[in-house]
Amino acid sequence: MAGDPIPPTIEWVGDRIRLIDQRRLPGELTVIDVTSVGQLCDLISTLAVRGAPALGAAGAMGVALASMHDLDIAATARRLKATRPTAVNLAWGVDRAVASDDPVAEAQRIAAEDVDTNRRLGAAGAALVPDGANVLTHCNAGSLACVGYGTALGVLRAASEAGKTLHVWVDETRPLLQGARLTAWELQRLAIPCTLVIDAMAASIMAAGGVDLVVVGADRVAANGDVANKIGTYGLAVLARHHRIPFHVAMPLSTIDPDTADGASIVIERRDPNEVVELAGHRVGPEGIDVDNRAFDVTPAALVTSWITDVGVVRSPAELLVARRRLSRPL
Amino acid sequence: MAGDPIPPTIEWVGDRIRLIDQRRLPGELTVIDVTSVGQLCDLISTLAVRGAPALGAAGAMGVALASMHDLDIAATARRLKATRPTAVNLAWGVDRAVASDDPVAEAQRIAAEDVDTNRRLGAAGAALVPDGANVLTHCNAGSLACVGYGTALGVLRAASEAGKTLHVWVDETRPLLQGARLTAWELQRLAIPCTLVIDAMAASIMAAGGVDLVVVGADRVAANGDVANKIGTYGLAVLARHHRIPFHVAMPLSTIDPDTADGASIVIERRDPNEVVELAGHRVGPEGIDVDNRAFDVTPAALVTSWITDVGVVRSPAELLVARRRLSRPL
Repeated sequence: MAGDPIPPTIEWVGDRIRLIDQRRLPGELTVIDVTSVGQLCDLISTLAVRGAPALGAAGAMGVALASMHDLDIAATARRLKATRPTAVNLAWGVDRAVASDDPVAEAQRIAAEDVDTNRRLGAAGAALVPDGANVLTHCNAGSLACVGYGTALGVLRAASEAGKTLHVWVDETRPLLQGARLTAWELQRLAIPCTLVIDAMAASIMAAGGVDLVVVGADRVAANGDVANKIGTYGLAVLARHHRIPFHVAMPLSTIDPDTADGASIVIERRDPNEVVELAGHRVGPEGIDVDNRAFDVTPAALVTSWITDVGVVRSPAELLVARRRLSRPL
Repeated sequence: MAGDPIPPTIEWVGDRIRLIDQRRLPGELTVIDVTSVGQLCDLISTLAVRGAPALGAAGAMGVALASMHDLDIAATARRLKATRPTAVNLAWGVDRAVASDDPVAEAQRIAAEDVDTNRRLGAAGAALVPDGANVLTHCNAGSLACVGYGTALGVLRAASEAGKTLHVWVDETRPLLQGARLTAWELQRLAIPCTLVIDAMAASIMAAGGVDLVVVGADRVAANGDVANKIGTYGLAVLARHHRIPFHVAMPLSTIDPDTADGASIVIERRDPNEVVELAGHRVGPEGIDVDNRAFDVTPAALVTSWITDVGVVRSPAELLVARRRLSRPL
């Protein structure tokens, strides 16, 4: 219901992982207990749990499960990382847990840090949101994309908590509708006014003066500041530039991959064509049609107004890389 | 099946209208016999028949039905025009039949002219399509949007008939998926290679050099050349300009409304929110969510490379208006 709290996306409970099954939202809020690495890999692949920061915690918890069950840690790490090739936080979380003496404790530390990180990021970004702003966002970079609080939605949440009024345009985000299913649901719970639109309507809202800023999350940020995020993000960045609208990317420093030189080096996951041609089990395209279903695109750093991070708002790729290198935790 | 002919979208048969029920495509190719104006209005409102040129014929045939059944012609004309406020061809077809001594004959003349018009338009536009081109299109401006042959797809069809090879990126076109359901189906029948993509993927295909030109249809062109077309068209025009890709609009001269000064004067139809939040009867957004479902947007003339018409390829709005004024038929 509107106003109800949003539970943790993923947590460690006793000897298992407990996570929200995001495939069933917004109709049902249900949790799944995860007791095996194979089960976790399936849940990641089918997007029961998704979002770069949440996948960082999920990856670490997967290693924690493997360590408890005396599985081969290196093989588990490879298996987990292969489920989603674009989101760098997944590999980051796996590697942190692998490098730790106590993967279970480390996974819980990552989960706790995530919420703190997002609150800091949100507070820093809230300054960029004018009172009364109309904000456009894409996909879900909310609490459900993280352990809690959210990145892009964390910024809006912090602005709202600071007493600012705002209205959010929620792109539905085809093919899997994370905007319609997850972001709209979260904003309802947060009592932040929002309007759901199809992805292709963003340009005409901008042309009518209806968007003051765009805020999105990120799945991987390259060393030069290029941003891989949900397919459609790059187009919004081009449209924002055309309409002279600020375009902000909100993400923890752990989403920056110093080993990826630029956007051209980022592997873009291609997913099942049926995500596009089947809706709720109903076929919408003709039999035999060719489908290209890229899950992400790359926005060049030149189109990004600022990167909103847990160490503050960063305005240049060089500054971003310096901040990432200061992260005490090894990648 | 691939290679099968595409039947007429709408035709006059004896004392009734026969039209393809486009709501059932691509799963089923079925026709409906229409014997009353009320039935026709429902079919237009629910997009069983849609597309600016097809609506011109449908409007005229609606007046023909009214004349046969001795209904009040002025009231019928108002009722028909109110079903879709943006597409100017609907009003144009209604007015032509109303002004005629024999609405039945006039409606059949409009239907016959439509196919000729589109063949001329297609032949003119084919010159703009290089051999081996990758073309992006949005919504359905094919045979199904007309009585036959198509406008934007007519251009591609003429290029293909002239022996050129091409590949078409088909935007699925949310919310009603005319791209996935209708354009992909038509291109399969025409044996023109195509790939279905979500609307938000267009930008990244362009960035990767995968699009040589964009061709779309139009629902109304203002006197200054501004183009109202399916929501998402304007964003594609901005993206095409950013990537220096030609952006062509294919439409008969009857789609130009000399009485509409510019895009700002065009009424944009807003449709049922359930078109966005329900997919195949399955709810995808949370209960109570606000939805803005604009059916069209406006592309300023400055973003249009050329208007492909039945009197040839036109490069300036002034030239376009002169051509429209030479149309012998009164509006």
